[in-house]
Amino acid sequence: MKNILVAQSGGPSAAINATLCGVVEEALADRNIDRIYGAKNGIMGVLSEHLIELNDVLSNPETLQLLCQTPSSALGSCRMKLSHWEESTFEYEKTIQIFRKYNIGYFIYIGGNDSMDTVYKLAEYCRMKKIDDICIVGAPKTIDNDLVETDHCPGFGSAAKYIAATFSEIACDCNVYALPSITIVEVMGRDAGWLTAASALGRLNGSGAPDLIYLCERPFDVDQFLTDVREKMAEKHSIIIAVSEGLRNEEGDYVTDTLKDRAEDAFGHKILAGASRFLEEILRQEIGCKVRSIELNVMQRCASHLASAADIHEARLIGMAAADYAISGGSGKMACLQRVSTNPYRFTVDFVDITKIANRVKTVPEEWINEAGNDVTQEMIDYLLPLIQGEMPCTYKNGVPVHLRLY
Amino acid sequence: MKNILVAQSGGPSAAINATLCGVVEEALADRNIDRIYGAKNGIMGVLSEHLIELNDVLSNPETLQLLCQTPSSALGSCRMKLSHWEESTFEYEKTIQIFRKYNIGYFIYIGGNDSMDTVYKLAEYCRMKKIDDICIVGAPKTIDNDLVETDHCPGFGSAAKYIAATFSEIACDCNVYALPSITIVEVMGRDAGWLTAASALGRLNGSGAPDLIYLCERPFDVDQFLTDVREKMAEKHSIIIAVSEGLRNEEGDYVTDTLKDRAEDAFGHKILAGASRFLEEILRQEIGCKVRSIELNVMQRCASHLASAADIHEARLIGMAAADYAISGGSGKMACLQRVSTNPYRFTVDFVDITKIANRVKTVPEEWINEAGNDVTQEMIDYLLPLIQGEMPCTYKNGVPVHLRLY
Repeated sequence: MKNILVAQSGGPSAAINATLCGVVEEALADRNIDRIYGAKNGIMGVLSEHLIELNDVLSNPETLQLLCQTPSSALGSCRMKLSHWEESTFEYEKTIQIFRKYNIGYFIYIGGNDSMDTVYKLAEYCRMKKIDDICIVGAPKTIDNDLVETDHCPGFGSAAKYIAATFSEIACDCNVYALPSITIVEVMGRDAGWLTAASALGRLNGSGAPDLIYLCERPFDVDQFLTDVREKMAEKHSIIIAVSEGLRNEEGDYVTDTLKDRAEDAFGHKILAGASRFLEEILRQEIGCKVRSIELNVMQRCASHLASAADIHEARLIGMAAADYAISGGSGKMACLQRVSTNPYRFTVDFVDITKIANRVKTVPEEWINEAGNDVTQEMIDYLLPLIQGEMPCTYKNGVPVHLRLY
Repeated sequence: MKNILVAQSGGPSAAINATLCGVVEEALADRNIDRIYGAKNGIMGVLSEHLIELNDVLSNPETLQLLCQTPSSALGSCRMKLSHWEESTFEYEKTIQIFRKYNIGYFIYIGGNDSMDTVYKLAEYCRMKKIDDICIVGAPKTIDNDLVETDHCPGFGSAAKYIAATFSEIACDCNVYALPSITIVEVMGRDAGWLTAASALGRLNGSGAPDLIYLCERPFDVDQFLTDVREKMAEKHSIIIAVSEGLRNEEGDYVTDTLKDRAEDAFGHKILAGASRFLEEILRQEIGCKVRSIELNVMQRCASHLASAADIHEARLIGMAAADYAISGGSGKMACLQRVSTNPYRFTVDFVDITKIANRVKTVPEEWINEAGNDVTQEMIDYLLPLIQGEMPCTYKNGVPVHLRLY
């Protein structure tokens, strides 16, 4: 009998705890597994021996349901990359020592690109050292949806659903006055525009918002932007614009850096803010109507009360599959979602060599952005639609959603 | 047989359409009412004769349910105050003329302080002119909860519930890393701190957030603020702070104005933003840890997918009561919610003379803020708690909430 260890890493999402739930459920059901440990704050908790036993804490279905409706990483997270073993083997030796001490035969690491780097390095180190009784498997999680080899990433669907619902609600909010107005909504994503693309789903039930969509994959030109806005304002009195936080110009410099000089207040003060705030100021000066900017901020990744049932279901399944794969002796791979068909939506889980995944970024394909660079194509909508389907039951107490605290 | 006219005015909320629904339901059920008209964009729509018939559009229960889950004002809104009749009687004469043309015997105006000014002026004008066959009644609506004579205002409970849930979710998000961090969340309210106070409800299920709460009623002192933050940071590594957008100093000047010079980045760039962004930069410089600021922005008033069932129920009831009161010959009053008891929560609806309400603001009582000025008292929690109870069913299509469009 061996024990299993699970940890979470990288930025929070509404689905990462569902993957933890899946790992625990699979391990609880497997007779070959004795203890289930969680490391606090990802690999940092392994190195500092902050492990907690999960068997009893997560033994009943009600608690597991609460875990699934709790956003962010219930075990805590970290943003730590292991040193390369050629520089120092200390972290590797320490990790293996802790694994031995706790009789860990299986390690499931849930996270994004950086976390998959850890899976890669640990698995590769074990292979080199001929340690074949510790299986290390990655489970994907990132709202950014930028992991390669998987059709999409758990956590993304819930963020996309929040963004779609919120754009539809913002459209109701912004259209009430008869006055001309522009609303710019900034969506997360510095390197990939998937989340910003999801704003297009806000139109599905007829809201019409957003009117313009700018992804960080396409170089951003302020003058073209102003032309686009003027054209839309000629058609309707109130428009809503979605922008990626990571908008860059032709040279690859962030808009937030390059627009500093152009976006200054009435007294000529340079200003410090995000992309939407800069554009707000520029529109106010160039177009002159009422302009508002909105950052969806952390709400887009932690609004678990509005999670996508499809996403939570997949996140849980992928946790179960990753645990099962490791327990069956698999290692050095990440669980990936492969889309079998879009309509009806069907997928399978397979396992891809971690060397193909770690430290790579999947951006939005050029052909899923329209020619004018201010919208997405129908292919993008078709891709996104199944990922936001269904609503999760949510347990409330005192009128507020209940969130599970593991420590 | 006479007709009834309803209109909406002021800022959007998640409950104002439930009040519209109540008015329409009551009028549909009353044999003395023939046509139900809605004016587009509030009193502006009356003056410009933009009326739409609602009898058929809102005749079935499914549509009314969709109306209730649609945020913002389905009839559109305006921010317009009538000129005083001593300056010009044009708007009054025009209004009465339109009322006569459409055989309007009852006018229900749903809105906040400014809208009640319109109810007051129209009712008073009719009284002076001895027009006794047009009854004008106000129905309260404001997320700010700052109308006097009513225990609370429809729209506030849903915003409060959103704020409470979001603080609990943000707490999950912010506590994941082992590093020291400060998160400042800016809540709406320039003159009254009710919404910011509702952040305290985020603690109900044990989130611990927010750690500090600053309402706009209490003069804000930056140095005391820094002392408070340092004390909290000595206790725990991650803290969350709620601030009203309308924070002012001892002299009554907005923090956003007075801190401009102090809040600049390392390169001397000015920051152009709200209170939270200023405080973020000041904390970064003075305390030096990771600091994030979040504006709940319009989401706090339009997130109808997370509406309070108590709020929507009351909003609908108050619409029915206002219509019933007008049809029974009442005029020049606003429908008010009177709390009979807090535990169990019971309330009644009564009608208060509009002269006591228009143009007044109900701020948070001094004794509901703690002595240190950085939190609220138990009396505040007891007051708020019943207003966020219960969740509304929400119809989704394509994974996104359905919102009704009346035009």
